[in-house]
Amino acid sequence: MSHNDIIQAAGLTEAEVTGGTLAVHSPIDGAEVARVRETDPADMAAIIAKSQEAFKAWRTVPAPRRGELVRLLGEELRAAKDELGAVVTLEAGKITSEGSGEVQEMIDICDFAVGLSRQIYGLTIASERPGHRMMETWHPLGPCAIITAFNFPVAVWSWNSALALVCGDPVIWKPSEKTPLTAMASMKIMERALKRFGDAPEGLCQLVIGGPAIGEALVNSQDVPIVSATGSTRMGGIVGPKVAGRWGRPILELGGNNAMIVAPSADLDMAVRAIVFSAVGTAGQRCTTLRRLIAHNSIKDDLVAKLTKAYSSLPIGDPRKSTTLVGPLIDHASRDRMQAALEKAKAEGGTVHGGKTVTSGVPQGGAYVEPAIAEMPAQTDTVRTETFAPILYVMGYETLDEAIAIQNDVPQGLSSCIFTLNMREAEAFLSAAGSDCGIANVNIGPSGAEIGGAFGGEKETGGGRESGSDAWKGYMRRQTNTINYSAQLPLAQGVKFDF
Amino acid sequence: MSHNDIIQAAGLTEAEVTGGTLAVHSPIDGAEVARVRETDPADMAAIIAKSQEAFKAWRTVPAPRRGELVRLLGEELRAAKDELGAVVTLEAGKITSEGSGEVQEMIDICDFAVGLSRQIYGLTIASERPGHRMMETWHPLGPCAIITAFNFPVAVWSWNSALALVCGDPVIWKPSEKTPLTAMASMKIMERALKRFGDAPEGLCQLVIGGPAIGEALVNSQDVPIVSATGSTRMGGIVGPKVAGRWGRPILELGGNNAMIVAPSADLDMAVRAIVFSAVGTAGQRCTTLRRLIAHNSIKDDLVAKLTKAYSSLPIGDPRKSTTLVGPLIDHASRDRMQAALEKAKAEGGTVHGGKTVTSGVPQGGAYVEPAIAEMPAQTDTVRTETFAPILYVMGYETLDEAIAIQNDVPQGLSSCIFTLNMREAEAFLSAAGSDCGIANVNIGPSGAEIGGAFGGEKETGGGRESGSDAWKGYMRRQTNTINYSAQLPLAQGVKFDF
Amino acid sequence: MSHNDIIQAAGLTEAEVTGGTLAVHSPIDGAEVARVRETDPADMAAIIAKSQEAFKAWRTVPAPRRGELVRLLGEELRAAKDELGAVVTLEAGKITSEGSGEVQEMIDICDFAVGLSRQIYGLTIASERPGHRMMETWHPLGPCAIITAFNFPVAVWSWNSALALVCGDPVIWKPSEKTPLTAMASMKIMERALKRFGDAPEGLCQLVIGGPAIGEALVNSQDVPIVSATGSTRMGGIVGPKVAGRWGRPILELGGNNAMIVAPSADLDMAVRAIVFSAVGTAGQRCTTLRRLIAHNSIKDDLVAKLTKAYSSLPIGDPRKSTTLVGPLIDHASRDRMQAALEKAKAEGGTVHGGKTVTSGVPQGGAYVEPAIAEMPAQTDTVRTETFAPILYVMGYETLDEAIAIQNDVPQGLSSCIFTLNMREAEAFLSAAGSDCGIANVNIGPSGAEIGGAFGGEKETGGGRESGSDAWKGYMRRQTNTINYSAQLPLAQGVKFDF
Amino acid sequence: MSHNDIIQAAGLTEAEVTGGTLAVHSPIDGAEVARVRETDPADMAAIIAKSQEAFKAWRTVPAPRRGELVRLLGEELRAAKDELGAVVTLEAGKITSEGSGEVQEMIDICDFAVGLSRQIYGLTIASERPGHRMMETWHPLGPCAIITAFNFPVAVWSWNSALALVCGDPVIWKPSEKTPLTAMASMKIMERALKRFGDAPEGLCQLVIGGPAIGEALVNSQDVPIVSATGSTRMGGIVGPKVAGRWGRPILELGGNNAMIVAPSADLDMAVRAIVFSAVGTAGQRCTTLRRLIAHNSIKDDLVAKLTKAYSSLPIGDPRKSTTLVGPLIDHASRDRMQAALEKAKAEGGTVHGGKTVTSGVPQGGAYVEPAIAEMPAQTDTVRTETFAPILYVMGYETLDEAIAIQNDVPQGLSSCIFTLNMREAEAFLSAAGSDCGIANVNIGPSGAEIGGAFGGEKETGGGRESGSDAWKGYMRRQTNTINYSAQLPLAQGVKFDF
Repeated sequence: MSHNDIIQAAGLTEAEVTGGTLAVHSPIDGAEVARVRETDPADMAAIIAKSQEAFKAWRTVPAPRRGELVRLLGEELRAAKDELGAVVTLEAGKITSEGSGEVQEMIDICDFAVGLSRQIYGLTIASERPGHRMMETWHPLGPCAIITAFNFPVAVWSWNSALALVCGDPVIWKPSEKTPLTAMASMKIMERALKRFGDAPEGLCQLVIGGPAIGEALVNSQDVPIVSATGSTRMGGIVGPKVAGRWGRPILELGGNNAMIVAPSADLDMAVRAIVFSAVGTAGQRCTTLRRLIAHNSIKDDLVAKLTKAYSSLPIGDPRKSTTLVGPLIDHASRDRMQAALEKAKAEGGTVHGGKTVTSGVPQGGAYVEPAIAEMPAQTDTVRTETFAPILYVMGYETLDEAIAIQNDVPQGLSSCIFTLNMREAEAFLSAAGSDCGIANVNIGPSGAEIGGAFGGEKETGGGRESGSDAWKGYMRRQTNTINYSAQLPLAQGVKFDF
Repeated sequence: MSHNDIIQAAGLTEAEVTGGTLAVHSPIDGAEVARVRETDPADMAAIIAKSQEAFKAWRTVPAPRRGELVRLLGEELRAAKDELGAVVTLEAGKITSEGSGEVQEMIDICDFAVGLSRQIYGLTIASERPGHRMMETWHPLGPCAIITAFNFPVAVWSWNSALALVCGDPVIWKPSEKTPLTAMASMKIMERALKRFGDAPEGLCQLVIGGPAIGEALVNSQDVPIVSATGSTRMGGIVGPKVAGRWGRPILELGGNNAMIVAPSADLDMAVRAIVFSAVGTAGQRCTTLRRLIAHNSIKDDLVAKLTKAYSSLPIGDPRKSTTLVGPLIDHASRDRMQAALEKAKAEGGTVHGGKTVTSGVPQGGAYVEPAIAEMPAQTDTVRTETFAPILYVMGYETLDEAIAIQNDVPQGLSSCIFTLNMREAEAFLSAAGSDCGIANVNIGPSGAEIGGAFGGEKETGGGRESGSDAWKGYMRRQTNTINYSAQLPLAQGVKFDF
Repeated sequence: MSHNDIIQAAGLTEAEVTGGTLAVHSPIDGAEVARVRETDPADMAAIIAKSQEAFKAWRTVPAPRRGELVRLLGEELRAAKDELGAVVTLEAGKITSEGSGEVQEMIDICDFAVGLSRQIYGLTIASERPGHRMMETWHPLGPCAIITAFNFPVAVWSWNSALALVCGDPVIWKPSEKTPLTAMASMKIMERALKRFGDAPEGLCQLVIGGPAIGEALVNSQDVPIVSATGSTRMGGIVGPKVAGRWGRPILELGGNNAMIVAPSADLDMAVRAIVFSAVGTAGQRCTTLRRLIAHNSIKDDLVAKLTKAYSSLPIGDPRKSTTLVGPLIDHASRDRMQAALEKAKAEGGTVHGGKTVTSGVPQGGAYVEPAIAEMPAQTDTVRTETFAPILYVMGYETLDEAIAIQNDVPQGLSSCIFTLNMREAEAFLSAAGSDCGIANVNIGPSGAEIGGAFGGEKETGGGRESGSDAWKGYMRRQTNTINYSAQLPLAQGVKFDF
Repeated sequence: MSHNDIIQAAGLTEAEVTGGTLAVHSPIDGAEVARVRETDPADMAAIIAKSQEAFKAWRTVPAPRRGELVRLLGEELRAAKDELGAVVTLEAGKITSEGSGEVQEMIDICDFAVGLSRQIYGLTIASERPGHRMMETWHPLGPCAIITAFNFPVAVWSWNSALALVCGDPVIWKPSEKTPLTAMASMKIMERALKRFGDAPEGLCQLVIGGPAIGEALVNSQDVPIVSATGSTRMGGIVGPKVAGRWGRPILELGGNNAMIVAPSADLDMAVRAIVFSAVGTAGQRCTTLRRLIAHNSIKDDLVAKLTKAYSSLPIGDPRKSTTLVGPLIDHASRDRMQAALEKAKAEGGTVHGGKTVTSGVPQGGAYVEPAIAEMPAQTDTVRTETFAPILYVMGYETLDEAIAIQNDVPQGLSSCIFTLNMREAEAFLSAAGSDCGIANVNIGPSGAEIGGAFGGEKETGGGRESGSDAWKGYMRRQTNTINYSAQLPLAQGVKFDF
């Protein structure tokens, strides 16, 4: 399908995608595919006020009813899966299967959130005083700003908004400036759900498009208690303290520098498949992309040989073609950063396989590259830095303790994994003395988390958690209640105060 | 008992309480009771390094074994309850019953933490992929700095350290400069527990004494992942963003401006008793002290009359005397701030009952005051400000919605309560549209929380939670694990990537 | 719609509803509406074996995938809501709104179960031994027999099967002999879901129709580990011990004798509405039907007057008419039992209002009755007995303790409620010394539970729990795992055994 | 220490251990060591009534206060650990380390229960109706009968009573007729705790001594809602249905036939140590004793050789000697059953190593045996039968599926384990298609569970759970509450019923 066909199939009108100030280019061929209107920073106060107004109404709507909206969203997403996936491909350059997979993730989180809407479990708690009852309840907190990055242009929004909406919080979405169309297409879908739902307050789900001024308005507003921001560590390092400084709650999903340890007992064929997908998928632009391979010295050369062989046969090109596995980088600047990193790696003693710019057999105008493998003599500064491109640094190790030390010795703490068939190694990797990441897997790569688990990481990854488990608590306020139904007034801890 | 006797009974040696640079005065009579040594800021790096070293060992000690240390601490606290309570009285000026109550709170949290040490429950989670298992585990996070305030000189430390220790984290305690003796006495007790325990790593529990430079070293160190700080909103507003900015985790327990709504149906006698204790107890220097009384217009005058009568008979004086209910303020500056606030309140149209400085019948040198009641025409700026002294601002209301709006219209969000026998009012107060505080009670005052519930508040109170429920999660890192034990490598969300 | 039209609209073919040995009569007019085939008891062994076979496959299907089947079931139920509700009306005699409400309950539980399918949370648990990990996992248990009663001919099946299927258990449904058509219509819907799902094992959801021999085969089979039986206490008293005796797990939902306490402070208008719905709805044939009214002496006469007035205006008749509120009893035997109970009540000193057989303005052939109110001098044997008909026994009380004692002094323990605006009364009723029922409500009637809570009761009600909260655990087996990944073999409790 | 010294050291008076009708023999030497008084069956009604009376008071004591009693019990147990352990040795014949270990288990569960006493968490749940609140609370259920077996004469009581007491239930303990002294000694300890506690209701903890008539009184009484029974499957098969038949709640911990699978990759030295302890410890008389060894054919002979060698060096004899590892069987009848089983095994084709009666070097009068290893050609009827003695049946296997099938193909379902270093095997064993037992371990034996996990098993083991996780729910009743605080009366599922 042509760019235009994709845009139209997603329900965006000519008027919506032309005449604006923000030019949208497809990484597939660099073509400008739309010019969309940006939100005027001066309007942000009104937008936030509307969200607060919506909050007043939405917080008293019973949660299972709020869940019905999310259920309808899930239904509409199912119906529009291919169309929305295509916009993801168009705008983020993901291959078709990954574009669809991202929409599937949206659908999954909707299912989860619908179930959650009849739970939102707090606790009843034993009180130490006769005639007293204690409980803990979770209440809506208020508007939730969702700042998303280009590489998961829709899933991250849905993770946050499905939970936030069920939890009673209105949402304001600021997508990446690189992917406004997927955001607009998602809002079309949400609007259909809202229409079927019927009586949601106006302003419950808002979209704001634009640059830093828009984001700052959300980050700085006292009336936006939650700011969920996905992106670079640099961005998060600014947003986090700002939100904290005005008593808001940041939920940060920042950079990863994800590693795999491959032990001698590993199923190497399986490892190779996992490595290729997690290092090369989404052209190395997932926050959970595999960036560091820590292979036991006894199998390292063999593994690298298998990988370079596998890499050499990967179909690179137009992500819309069903056979393509490696699509374009998001833009040429990204490719330049990749090349610079590879140069640095070489300067540090690394041996680089692949990594060249690809210009033949691919759509012209896009930034296509061969995924790179860089065998490194040690974990250098370049290795410790997250470069958002398909570079896989390879290092050797001798003992598991050493491998874990290498794994942990980076500033980021998102995802990690080990390939081993040895249960002692697997368990040690998952133990308190093992990986320091928020995600630690065994015999699967670092990427591709299921929505049932909490997603996020430690250290410079920002500490936020989204998606499953009790990540929903991040969108609510906790209240501890003690109810005295007796006619006495005993004090806790046996304190006496009689006058 | 004399000051010296109290100090000796707590096990502090002459050498420990003399010759230092930090003068300790008792609020009872302003006497200098000790001069203790301060930690050299230059030593902080080594202290933190020692804590990190202890962490490496402690994190692999099984949690139930870690719990045994806390159990022994509980035993030792039981044995030393009166002695430690007396130091609290000496140094913080609390009446005897409250000093003991604070130690009881330490004991309670130890009991709770011991049970927790065999739980620390994570989740096993259904995976969407065949031959896969998912789980969530909680791991120790690292050294935990505990910065405490003068008004709960020991309980707050124990809340944090009992949990942190069971969770696998070493602790570094920086007490208020006003209360180093209680900290030192607590460490004596902890040392006895450590000795009985046997093989805890050195540096597991450290005490640092001193001023801002000491605190800053903890706040700024990358090697102190958790900073639990209790104190003023001003302090927290600095600490929070700093810790967040270096990817640490702040747990903030800051100011409160706690209110009680008294409805027409309230049991007024019970309300009066609750008000007096929670407004006057600890001389109004609890973070949960009742500061605002929002009384229905139909009963307001009657209630104020009862209160002024009750206030007039409160025994003010030496907190060591068993009959005393109102001890001294922490210092004269505090008294001056109280007087200034009362002046402002008058200027804003308030009518003040009581509040005078008391000089007769009380130990000379201390800052004794009559607790004050200030009837206010509206919720003015002075009312919105937390003054750490026994001032109770009284306002009227007509409808419950109005009362809740007044309750919520302050920057702080710690504790709150309603007195009513009407279940509709009680429930509305606890609902999503009710109190916006972290604690909301019915028919008990805002202070005196049990340790079984999570303690902490919203907005400028800082959002931290300590003590019961799942507050322990704040001391650990969450890890999401997916284990593939099959010989297949399916991707989540049905993504296909075959090469 | 005619009986036939309803049957056809539900997708049942002529062949399916004729020629069988089980005659189905509609309580609306007593007409025989179908003759369906009964399962040959000799086939039960094969049916159970097929279920076991399905279990072997289904238990390894990932739970979220199992959830997808339930999600599709929910979709199909939404699409067929009116048609299935109409069969409920036809066969059980429920009014239209209740027929639809029952299907809505099916839909709700599907939503809940879908969310659950990504949870099924077990625990990870702190181990006391170094290098050990503990966890608790929940595994499928095996075929689940679901024995349902006529009064909730479809909802109870869905409560059980939505959970059982997500939990990994095949189901075998034995509906009441009075309502095979609703069961067959439900299976049509399930088959559509199964078809869309694709690869479920054959025999996952089976229906068996017939009498006691069929039920006994399920109750007695070692290969049916779970027997969920809803019905009379007499039935449950036989099934429970039999299943327990062969090491199976019974989930019993038996009789209720549900009461409401009306306190002096109650909102009487609201109470009247709640009483009428919960005493009269489904013609008094819900297990949660209100059967006993315990009214404070000060308001009892007024309340009875309001009730008799309200009762006198209730539209009794054809349940298919949108204005009807009281449909027929299930059969004439039921009406006879009602009349006999009223006679006994009179003999015990009761004063009966209403309760007469209705023959005019109603379809001929049905067992229509006026709902009855019986003012009783005390809680007699007749009051203590559950008569499945719209009889409301009224008793007075003086103190709340007395009211609670009356409430608890029956053999059943399903549902209960209090109407009061006094929070002390409300809380006392919910406390450990309050209602002894599995369900205890405040200011709503005893019936009409939401699916988010666990449903079931104590004492002769059988102790089972279904629907929400962690009722799903009843369909699974719990496994406690300790994994030693160290090279040591420490024993628990410090036991030494060195050889 | 002599028998008498042990009895006296445990605080039992001459009067208490003489003159009764129940003769107590020590398995050490068969000597009669006491004659204790039996409870008159005619007194059981009064005993149960007293328990019910205690319940009325105890249920309203706040749970943390109830926990204080259990904490004191833990303290007293710590103080009396050696003395009580010695009585266990005297009366049950356990070696000293195991006697102490059993008391340690009592202490551990007390610690756990104390923490639990500030939790007893129910849930707050999102309601689908505006102005409604839902929650689930757990309430005390009533007197709990605890029927224990000789082999864990004190731990099982403490598991049950620590939880029951914290949960608000009085307990009535019927110990094995073989071990009344340990029960009496435990009650002495409990009495000390009760005395320190102060105001517990009379009859909170009662002991009844005697035979079947005593047990039946508990099993049959409507006023004993919980019957926790540990012992044989035969006993449980009678008790379970009886209790179920009168609407009580049985908690059954019955027989086990526990297996270990030893895979080719297993650490054989570790396996040998685990096998010896778990097959031979407590002379094979634990419910979790290892009875079946399923060894991969490639290592089976080697393993058996190592085992027979290890067995040959085990010190058999007086359990009071610190070097002894194998004490006596409980009595001569037990030895005879062991011999009979070995004969049968031989007749079925088995090869038996060891198993002979030992008469030299052991105290005369006791039933001492060599532990036996029986290599079996298949899993015969004898192997499928639990013989309460140290017989280890050994079978070979070729594939893991086959091993798991053998493991599961017995009527019992208590404990199980696998020794393997292969993570795929370990995980498969723990999966839904793996072990069907309540306990499944990796690289540790089937016995020696920690108290933090739920303890119990499936199938003929009875399905009960005790000790950790949420086993406490078995001692309470669950109540689902919906509170309507609005002025409206919406019905669930959108049902309309307006009159």
